Amino acid sequence: MKITQLGEFGLIERIRAALPEPGPNVIVGIGDDVAVLKAAAMVAASESVWLATCDVQVEGAHFLRTATPPRSLGRKSLAINLSDIASAGGIPRYALVSLGLPGDLEVGFIDELYAGLREEATAFGVDIVGGNISRSRLGIFIDVFLLGEAIRENVVLRSGAAVGDRVMVTGTVGDAAAGVALLLNPELEKATDAAYEEIARSRRDRPTPRVREGALIGSLRQASAMIDVSDGIAGDLRHICEKTTVSFRLHADTLPVSLANRALSRAARGDEWHFALHGGEDYELLFTAPPDRADQLARRISSETGTPVSVIGEIIPAGERPQLVLPDGSSHPMEGSGWDHFK
Amino acid sequence: MKITQLGEFGLIERIRAALPEPGPNVIVGIGDDVAVLKAAAMVAASESVWLATCDVQVEGAHFLRTATPPRSLGRKSLAINLSDIASAGGIPRYALVSLGLPGDLEVGFIDELYAGLREEATAFGVDIVGGNISRSRLGIFIDVFLLGEAIRENVVLRSGAAVGDRVMVTGTVGDAAAGVALLLNPELEKATDAAYEEIARSRRDRPTPRVREGALIGSLRQASAMIDVSDGIAGDLRHICEKTTVSFRLHADTLPVSLANRALSRAARGDEWHFALHGGEDYELLFTAPPDRADQLARRISSETGTPVSVIGEIIPAGERPQLVLPDGSSHPMEGSGWDHFK
Repeated sequence: MKITQLGEFGLIERIRAALPEPGPNVIVGIGDDVAVLKAAAMVAASESVWLATCDVQVEGAHFLRTATPPRSLGRKSLAINLSDIASAGGIPRYALVSLGLPGDLEVGFIDELYAGLREEATAFGVDIVGGNISRSRLGIFIDVFLLGEAIRENVVLRSGAAVGDRVMVTGTVGDAAAGVALLLNPELEKATDAAYEEIARSRRDRPTPRVREGALIGSLRQASAMIDVSDGIAGDLRHICEKTTVSFRLHADTLPVSLANRALSRAARGDEWHFALHGGEDYELLFTAPPDRADQLARRISSETGTPVSVIGEIIPAGERPQLVLPDGSSHPMEGSGWDHFK
Repeated sequence: MKITQLGEFGLIERIRAALPEPGPNVIVGIGDDVAVLKAAAMVAASESVWLATCDVQVEGAHFLRTATPPRSLGRKSLAINLSDIASAGGIPRYALVSLGLPGDLEVGFIDELYAGLREEATAFGVDIVGGNISRSRLGIFIDVFLLGEAIRENVVLRSGAAVGDRVMVTGTVGDAAAGVALLLNPELEKATDAAYEEIARSRRDRPTPRVREGALIGSLRQASAMIDVSDGIAGDLRHICEKTTVSFRLHADTLPVSLANRALSRAARGDEWHFALHGGEDYELLFTAPPDRADQLARRISSETGTPVSVIGEIIPAGERPQLVLPDGSSHPMEGSGWDHFK
């Protein structure tokens, strides 16, 4: 069945019926002009702040309908927003989903898309409380608005990194970029094996937002700055450094990147560190902390969440250029930044 | 200059610089992973709720680049969301703007779009606190996410209309539909005059969200149900009636519609009431109240805000079909509903 046959209001009712009952702080969810929401009151409201973010997946720019299953697309559309709330040390609460849809789209696509959204929302305790559906002759877009909460003192911003601070990152980097490269150039399969191909594809299509890790980093109040890695760690670290006019040095031998990733990066870009540094879409947390606390902080996050945390470099004065120290000890200026939608 | 030359981050900085300094409750605005927001604390936080809504303008579905100046588009993109917060009796506070843009778009378009967004935000006390910019090969979309606040007891929902309640509407209806008809069929100019053409065009391109009126209706706590008129009053009244399983009767001679509009509606659709009832995009407030309070409520809103309020009909039992009573006293069942994006 095409969505034109079901109609806008039939589609909204179908979506509402497929979602779980919202939590007790949702006074009004899907089906009115607005969603009516209470703070989850985890703390005295006077100490509490709201965090708001949005990010979109656009057909042709972020995904190809033929390559990404709609359920994965649903998960990812929410995951990239969860990652933003996590990167501020907050707790995600409420999502609105704004869809642009061509009229000839199959209803089954929406069912699967929402199955993915629902899975991701349930996994991270988020209520989908509203949204919008619009016809888009142009193709599909899925625009998600996410509201989170935080204790004000727990919020970690991009600004705050000081010279001497250590740079840390959760999980691994570069795998999503490898997945994208394999999608765009199937010839690259020859440069890897099936096991790594599956890892790369999964990291590309099903990023894991570091929600528990972000909330923990916030609550420990030791990180000086934080961002999630969407543009590649080099580019995102640059965003952190711009805020307090500092620079950075990374050590290649401490980067959490697999040998399989480095091999594929070398085959695709002639540089084994390219995917790890400039790949993008990792959705790991990249953060800084004073040198006397960094190692202990990394160990604590890792032990409490089970997610590895690597200390990968340090903040240096702005007078020095961003640099990468290779395993042989040589130091190289890092040119280029991360992903720019319009460059 | 094309936006590809400026780049994503240059564009974000340009937008940030052009916006006014945000208000004191915006802890972090544009330029971090999230916006960090406090309640405006107009009331004890325990009585306060957040209202969240989103609505989009998609090129080809809602506007044509050749017909709508980007400044008008900016105003309208926010106005349609302001209207949703107003229709719940709330006060709009914070907006996020998610843009999908083709790379070859002129930067001047964005400057004008944001000039319009800024004008509308300033006029209604809203801070633009963040958003997203994405490339869209598909064409332009402007997706606005708006957060408002309300005292919980002031919130007016679509549900609540009871048999006997009077139906009221602010302002006038049908003019935006006339503006759209004139755009799509320039031949219709012959059926009107230049003065009305200007009114219709202005109502189409620059809707006036009834923000003060909505907040007042909320604070008076006498309205039983409310919605903003985006799909036409017949269709939107149907949305109200579905919630409590009731029906409605409207009186044509009380509809706030001009003779010029009726003449154009007759010329375009063969029915002088068509634009008023089914036109859509009026962004007036349509609400119900018990019969013993309706007239006084209408007068009070009108006198406090300067906006006319008309009592146009009443809620009747669900067993009766929605009907329109013509000036000659004859009663006609109303078929058809409002705008459906996919029908």
